[in-house]
Amino acid sequence: MPDSNFAERSEEQVSGAKVIAQALKTQDVEYIFGIVGIPVTEIAIAAQQLGIKYIGMRNEQAACYAASAIGYLTSRPGVCLVVSGPGLIHALGGMANANMNCWYMERCMSPPISMAETSAVCMAASVIRNAKQPLLIIGKGAAYAHAEESIKKLVEQYKLPFLPTPMGKGVVPDNHPYCVGAARSRALQFADVIVLFGARLNWILHFGLPPRYQPDVKFIQVDICAEELGNNVKPAVTLLGNIHAVTKQLLEELDKTPWQYPPESKWWKTLREKMKSNEAASKELASKKSLPMNYYTVFYHVQEQLPRDCFVVSEGANTMDIGRTVLQNYLPRHRLDAGTFGTMGVGLGFAIAAAVVAKDRSPGQWIICVEGDSAFGFSGMEVETICRYNLPIILLVVNNNGIYQGFDTDTWKEMLKFQDATAVVPPMCLLPNSHYEQVMTAFGGKGYFVQTPEELQKSLRQSLADTTKPSLINIMIEPQATRKAQDFHWLTRSNM
Amino acid sequence: MPDSNFAERSEEQVSGAKVIAQALKTQDVEYIFGIVGIPVTEIAIAAQQLGIKYIGMRNEQAACYAASAIGYLTSRPGVCLVVSGPGLIHALGGMANANMNCWYMERCMSPPISMAETSAVCMAASVIRNAKQPLLIIGKGAAYAHAEESIKKLVEQYKLPFLPTPMGKGVVPDNHPYCVGAARSRALQFADVIVLFGARLNWILHFGLPPRYQPDVKFIQVDICAEELGNNVKPAVTLLGNIHAVTKQLLEELDKTPWQYPPESKWWKTLREKMKSNEAASKELASKKSLPMNYYTVFYHVQEQLPRDCFVVSEGANTMDIGRTVLQNYLPRHRLDAGTFGTMGVGLGFAIAAAVVAKDRSPGQWIICVEGDSAFGFSGMEVETICRYNLPIILLVVNNNGIYQGFDTDTWKEMLKFQDATAVVPPMCLLPNSHYEQVMTAFGGKGYFVQTPEELQKSLRQSLADTTKPSLINIMIEPQATRKAQDFHWLTRSNM
Amino acid sequence: MPDSNFAERSEEQVSGAKVIAQALKTQDVEYIFGIVGIPVTEIAIAAQQLGIKYIGMRNEQAACYAASAIGYLTSRPGVCLVVSGPGLIHALGGMANANMNCWYMERCMSPPISMAETSAVCMAASVIRNAKQPLLIIGKGAAYAHAEESIKKLVEQYKLPFLPTPMGKGVVPDNHPYCVGAARSRALQFADVIVLFGARLNWILHFGLPPRYQPDVKFIQVDICAEELGNNVKPAVTLLGNIHAVTKQLLEELDKTPWQYPPESKWWKTLREKMKSNEAASKELASKKSLPMNYYTVFYHVQEQLPRDCFVVSEGANTMDIGRTVLQNYLPRHRLDAGTFGTMGVGLGFAIAAAVVAKDRSPGQWIICVEGDSAFGFSGMEVETICRYNLPIILLVVNNNGIYQGFDTDTWKEMLKFQDATAVVPPMCLLPNSHYEQVMTAFGGKGYFVQTPEELQKSLRQSLADTTKPSLINIMIEPQATRKAQDFHWLTRSNM
Amino acid sequence: MPDSNFAERSEEQVSGAKVIAQALKTQDVEYIFGIVGIPVTEIAIAAQQLGIKYIGMRNEQAACYAASAIGYLTSRPGVCLVVSGPGLIHALGGMANANMNCWYMERCMSPPISMAETSAVCMAASVIRNAKQPLLIIGKGAAYAHAEESIKKLVEQYKLPFLPTPMGKGVVPDNHPYCVGAARSRALQFADVIVLFGARLNWILHFGLPPRYQPDVKFIQVDICAEELGNNVKPAVTLLGNIHAVTKQLLEELDKTPWQYPPESKWWKTLREKMKSNEAASKELASKKSLPMNYYTVFYHVQEQLPRDCFVVSEGANTMDIGRTVLQNYLPRHRLDAGTFGTMGVGLGFAIAAAVVAKDRSPGQWIICVEGDSAFGFSGMEVETICRYNLPIILLVVNNNGIYQGFDTDTWKEMLKFQDATAVVPPMCLLPNSHYEQVMTAFGGKGYFVQTPEELQKSLRQSLADTTKPSLINIMIEPQATRKAQDFHWLTRSNM
Repeated sequence: MPDSNFAERSEEQVSGAKVIAQALKTQDVEYIFGIVGIPVTEIAIAAQQLGIKYIGMRNEQAACYAASAIGYLTSRPGVCLVVSGPGLIHALGGMANANMNCWYMERCMSPPISMAETSAVCMAASVIRNAKQPLLIIGKGAAYAHAEESIKKLVEQYKLPFLPTPMGKGVVPDNHPYCVGAARSRALQFADVIVLFGARLNWILHFGLPPRYQPDVKFIQVDICAEELGNNVKPAVTLLGNIHAVTKQLLEELDKTPWQYPPESKWWKTLREKMKSNEAASKELASKKSLPMNYYTVFYHVQEQLPRDCFVVSEGANTMDIGRTVLQNYLPRHRLDAGTFGTMGVGLGFAIAAAVVAKDRSPGQWIICVEGDSAFGFSGMEVETICRYNLPIILLVVNNNGIYQGFDTDTWKEMLKFQDATAVVPPMCLLPNSHYEQVMTAFGGKGYFVQTPEELQKSLRQSLADTTKPSLINIMIEPQATRKAQDFHWLTRSNM
Repeated sequence: MPDSNFAERSEEQVSGAKVIAQALKTQDVEYIFGIVGIPVTEIAIAAQQLGIKYIGMRNEQAACYAASAIGYLTSRPGVCLVVSGPGLIHALGGMANANMNCWYMERCMSPPISMAETSAVCMAASVIRNAKQPLLIIGKGAAYAHAEESIKKLVEQYKLPFLPTPMGKGVVPDNHPYCVGAARSRALQFADVIVLFGARLNWILHFGLPPRYQPDVKFIQVDICAEELGNNVKPAVTLLGNIHAVTKQLLEELDKTPWQYPPESKWWKTLREKMKSNEAASKELASKKSLPMNYYTVFYHVQEQLPRDCFVVSEGANTMDIGRTVLQNYLPRHRLDAGTFGTMGVGLGFAIAAAVVAKDRSPGQWIICVEGDSAFGFSGMEVETICRYNLPIILLVVNNNGIYQGFDTDTWKEMLKFQDATAVVPPMCLLPNSHYEQVMTAFGGKGYFVQTPEELQKSLRQSLADTTKPSLINIMIEPQATRKAQDFHWLTRSNM
Repeated sequence: MPDSNFAERSEEQVSGAKVIAQALKTQDVEYIFGIVGIPVTEIAIAAQQLGIKYIGMRNEQAACYAASAIGYLTSRPGVCLVVSGPGLIHALGGMANANMNCWYMERCMSPPISMAETSAVCMAASVIRNAKQPLLIIGKGAAYAHAEESIKKLVEQYKLPFLPTPMGKGVVPDNHPYCVGAARSRALQFADVIVLFGARLNWILHFGLPPRYQPDVKFIQVDICAEELGNNVKPAVTLLGNIHAVTKQLLEELDKTPWQYPPESKWWKTLREKMKSNEAASKELASKKSLPMNYYTVFYHVQEQLPRDCFVVSEGANTMDIGRTVLQNYLPRHRLDAGTFGTMGVGLGFAIAAAVVAKDRSPGQWIICVEGDSAFGFSGMEVETICRYNLPIILLVVNNNGIYQGFDTDTWKEMLKFQDATAVVPPMCLLPNSHYEQVMTAFGGKGYFVQTPEELQKSLRQSLADTTKPSLINIMIEPQATRKAQDFHWLTRSNM
Repeated sequence: MPDSNFAERSEEQVSGAKVIAQALKTQDVEYIFGIVGIPVTEIAIAAQQLGIKYIGMRNEQAACYAASAIGYLTSRPGVCLVVSGPGLIHALGGMANANMNCWYMERCMSPPISMAETSAVCMAASVIRNAKQPLLIIGKGAAYAHAEESIKKLVEQYKLPFLPTPMGKGVVPDNHPYCVGAARSRALQFADVIVLFGARLNWILHFGLPPRYQPDVKFIQVDICAEELGNNVKPAVTLLGNIHAVTKQLLEELDKTPWQYPPESKWWKTLREKMKSNEAASKELASKKSLPMNYYTVFYHVQEQLPRDCFVVSEGANTMDIGRTVLQNYLPRHRLDAGTFGTMGVGLGFAIAAAVVAKDRSPGQWIICVEGDSAFGFSGMEVETICRYNLPIILLVVNNNGIYQGFDTDTWKEMLKFQDATAVVPPMCLLPNSHYEQVMTAFGGKGYFVQTPEELQKSLRQSLADTTKPSLINIMIEPQATRKAQDFHWLTRSNM
């Protein structure tokens, strides 16, 4: 990269940069994420002069993930500024992710609202009325469409059980009495009518296929995107249009004749019983006193202190999957998840985006970013970004010393006694007892290394109490791989 | 990403993985870099069972950069193992870099050796003999072709001045009396005949065009790759073939008639004088006692203790450019540079690759990885990888609190007194006085925060003395942006 | 291409082909266009056995253009069957064209119908009521949505002037008293409110920008595709939804209060006067007796005999542009045009697609395919396809011996007297007096070479009378390039 | 496409065009093929003014195929000029073909010559000397490298049997006594050492694998392109370098010790016997008197009159495969073949390119273009181009009424008695007895419809005698599908 002298930049560059910055301003851009270099530095400066906020990141991947979350959070375009060449290629991951999750970058105007065909609405209402075991599934599309008011009314007025997808959480609060998240598998498996609000029948929903669903289940699909309708299963009714507008159409139609789904039905009874037994099972896991802690113990203690209005960002394998079932959302668009792809590396970028938005629009709200230890490694250097801008983020690294699993320190040392690490370390293992919290203290934030429930409780309390600094809590859990290292077959080479 | 249970993996997966691992072994693969996940974990395990070394990285970008360096270092293919989808996209940066730098990944057999046409060799010899102001430029291609023996003989037998490109450094030692690196601009500008050994006339060599060169300079191009010949300028003679083989042809031809370039020529005199004055100028800079230190001070102290046989890896803007002129290489293929692209983020991947190779092939050699602070941020989490495998790497982070430049702590604090950081932090600034060395101590390595020449000397001595652990030395230098923050024009918004 | 013995094809190929054919049948595919070869022959045969019609073409380009038209004509998917490799690449042109024109290939289910937001409909109705100089523009999207009934009602009930785009012609008949096509430029330039029904503000509509439009013209955009809304101009109102459904919403809203646009307004007067003068001008051109004929003479004679229910397909430069203004459409989806791209080579593929559809769905209807002579050359060999399947197509080749212009025979001969053709033939010239009609007689169809209005009338009469055979009428017109060949500057070489 | 007025083109366009034309001239461009349109017309005119020849084609596909052949024929770049958008996409087929066949478009300078490593040459010579059953295979690369002199010397001096690949034909004349083309399968199957001169082990050479080859056959590969070496099999010796230069190295090495392969060896005896019996078998087929004619009859009669110095261009399935075995080449680079891909549609473009080159460089040479009837359809309209420029081309359309096979007229008529053609015509059938010769007469060339050997002889004689006009001879052969139409299973639909 040729050397750049700040003083030398040409008049042409400056005026070109001003034109680009003005164009971004005209398109209502509020936030730019990026890494400057020749020749984009001037654009960042020009944008700041117009009042656009520029957040300098440490790797283009994270910058692009951050930018991609802005559209979802603010319905205005997020911009990622990178130099061409390698910077652009680094940013590709973020762009692919935005696309798969159907988010918008650089979108220009809010789209006009469309409604569903009247006759299709009638048919949908009739199918719902005649359902014996109905279920609503609330997806990210419902959150994006700001459909919380209409969907909540539908749930409550007709007493219908509902289930959120990961990013649909909070459209109706997770602790709503009609939320059957704790009986998810049961609800999916036995529902006879399922209404999908901006939710896709992808792998997270088992593609809508038996044996996870009844073979003759009727799907009613409410979506803005025609291409998504009927992708895996042929829906009984499809309502194409803005999800909030269509839900209002549905409410209007259902209102014509007094009706509600009987709260004492066998279906409700089944679901409530299953919820009760599932919740008891996970509470039992959570209450285990053995150390290192397990996932449930950790998440129950986090949930106890989780502010009602916080954002939750999460990525990882078990960390994201189990965390999602325990940590509750009460507000729409307050959960950001690794999503459809299972993309690793999105967490810190998402958290940073949520934090800069929260600082402006809902000051005082925390961003709780729950990361697996492997997931944290993809973009851990963004902790410097968090500290530089002093963002209200608490990072929880749920640390099992590996990907899916790892070794404890003793086993690790034993393994390395006789051989070099590059020859014998199993591919999913990371260094045991890594002090990720020091990556935070290195930049002036607070760091905690916790091994017991008490330490966890205390560190959470302190982190939440001090609103002047970000924190990272490094939470040691069971590495799972409890067998002795020498038992592992990969240490017995087959043909040497 | 669906949960994976290690015990559950199917027989099919295992046997498919074995086939792939065996294919890699057959192609002489020695090292795999990657991040496991479904379904590639089995491949990594199967490869380890066959004696292939697997190095688990923290981000696919770094994994791919590491793999791309293996081909250059070992002439055998390096492999990057990632899951498809986002992992693959993250790896693209590395693949593009390998391509631009003309390195080989997954190459199958060493190519046969070709030689230049006899008549062209004669003509080249004649042009060299008749040169008044000759210059040899030794490029990465010469290193890759293992042409050190023949080129050194050419230099010494005929007493020709030479200049290495960044990755050509060490083919002939940098401290060789005929190396005119310290008079680089002068040598390029006035040479009348330039012989390029595997060096491309790209931006690093100013495209071979005036005013950096004589308009009628004659280029003799020695290269294996026909596509690269005559790209920017029309060479006087082109010698297509294996660089080592062609240099031997050239030696044979020149040997036919006794000749050498006169060591007392005006050209040699001019070059020697320029070298002397340039070296004096940079020594003066280096000897400045003011604090914070400047680049030259830092690199002179590093050079003093640099082991002769170490690998030097470098990336950054000024850090790489100035470091390259001061830090000397004595062995071929012992320097890895951000290269043609100026790609940021390659440093730690390259260093890790060099370290695993050095551990196997030349135990006891250190890898000195010289990073700008911004550059370090692209892949800083790979420090955990370095510690996990306990690799012989010393990381030097040359820290000016920003990209090209930054603020000192006082200016920083003053700037944030009245406004939020997201609104006013200039785009090239990073957090002042970041303790990057703690990113190393977090994982059990040694860390040093140094602000004076004495601290630098001491930390280098300690790092080099303890061969059981990697180190990171965080070297604070002048942030350059010494003006008061409020002077900066971007704080005076134009239209708010 | 390896030799193929029909008898030798394996059982595997046959059963694989059956599966693919069955899948196409399940998706309601009625027509396949293609060129067989290994290994797709079996698929074509298997498809025919299931009752799918297979039309063998002569070049993959034309096959793909034909397939792309099927979706527009039948609302069911058209399929193009080609071998991979070069066949696939040949077909790319067609696929790109389908995409640019927003047609669908291989679509799976008819999309659900969406409607516009009620409040937006109200606003649109209000804007229309308050328009002083309203204009409706009917685009291809309206034809595709089968919106003819609702739009015709809107036009007639409220007495609104309308203008069709090339492929919007016929949604409301071109000879409707409210069609202001003959005053197109005037209507666009002075309208104060323009309602776009499935029409895009692309280059055909001068991007909706001054000076072709009033700077403050209000656009109301009715479209199914959100991405198309507000592309070049910011519309006053956007109605997102199925065009037929939205137009009915609009009718319902306007019906609430009795209103119609005054037929004696100054706007209507202006438009009618302009139409009268424009029609007079082109009639005068058409009545010129000089030979060779001009475009207007040709098209007026064609229009006189054009069956009301025929399909018109057209491509070329002036041929398409002028032909479009004279040849009238009375039925929707009965015009196929080279379209948005100006793609050359689509004509015969489109005509063949229209013919196979017409044979099945509206027997007795002719396809009139109006081609420039250069345009005909792109896919002229498909005449064999037309004859092989004996399709009801009359090809009119409007022949001016070149692209945009050419030479007459005498000038041509004079030009070649002294020099070789490859050295001097101007790039836009084709062979004068080419007997394209013999390309039709070569395959058993009827061919006519016509030079006068009388010959044109007679040949049209005969072609239309004989429904057992396709025809090609090669119509010689003024080549325009009437200057002597030696005047042309390209014959005076500048530096030889 | 917007209308273009020739007079209106701007000064900017003209001067931009001149710059491009001058750049093409500087790169030694002699021929441009293309289709003009906005904005490339000016470029074509400007190029003509500089003496570059412009050949206007009818479809971008053919234009690009023509341009791609120029590099092979003249070792100078061929250029294809098309408008962007659809024109560019149409041209893709040609570009892909150029790439697969390793031809060069727009190449800038002739590459320097490289030679093989001396030790490898020694080893190759030793392997050849020790061969019991040696075979040389002469490929297109040998023709492209102009290696005819050295390879012929190698063949004759050491009495080695050789075999040409399709485009290697003529490097050594096909009628050379050491050519064993007539025993091709035998030669490949039993050779113990095979030297490949610029020939690739692709499907045409059965990938070099058993059972078509001895499992332990030793390959010596001579090639300019390192990437091609050792692709499918691991060669015993590889000689990387310019094929002519390397062959001369080989000759020099073999010359050191007197040796020749014994002409009375068992290997030569086996090959000669096989050649004799194969030639007898095909002569018997050729002498069959039954009508319609078969392929062998046709090609034997063509071969009898084929001028020794003509170019042969060919495409089709059996037409190309059988024609290649009978029609002989005596000069290098005088055969152009559909090649590696089996790309259909290349024939007329190649023939036109060969004709414009021949007119300039070897006036009086004919281009004989041998096309299957289906192949002709891909670009048949280029016959107008041939006539426009009056090119010395004789087109032979070997017509069996279909792709691989077709029906005779009686069967065809019977088949259509009861059903519509679109429903029942088998996918490989074309219209029987199509008069393709009229596509030639339409543009003033000569056309012949021939059904007997006598008619074929006479038409060839007349075509070759009249050098003022191109001809097309439409040669009817056995359609092969002699069974009655109703026997074909595809007429018995399985599920209707």
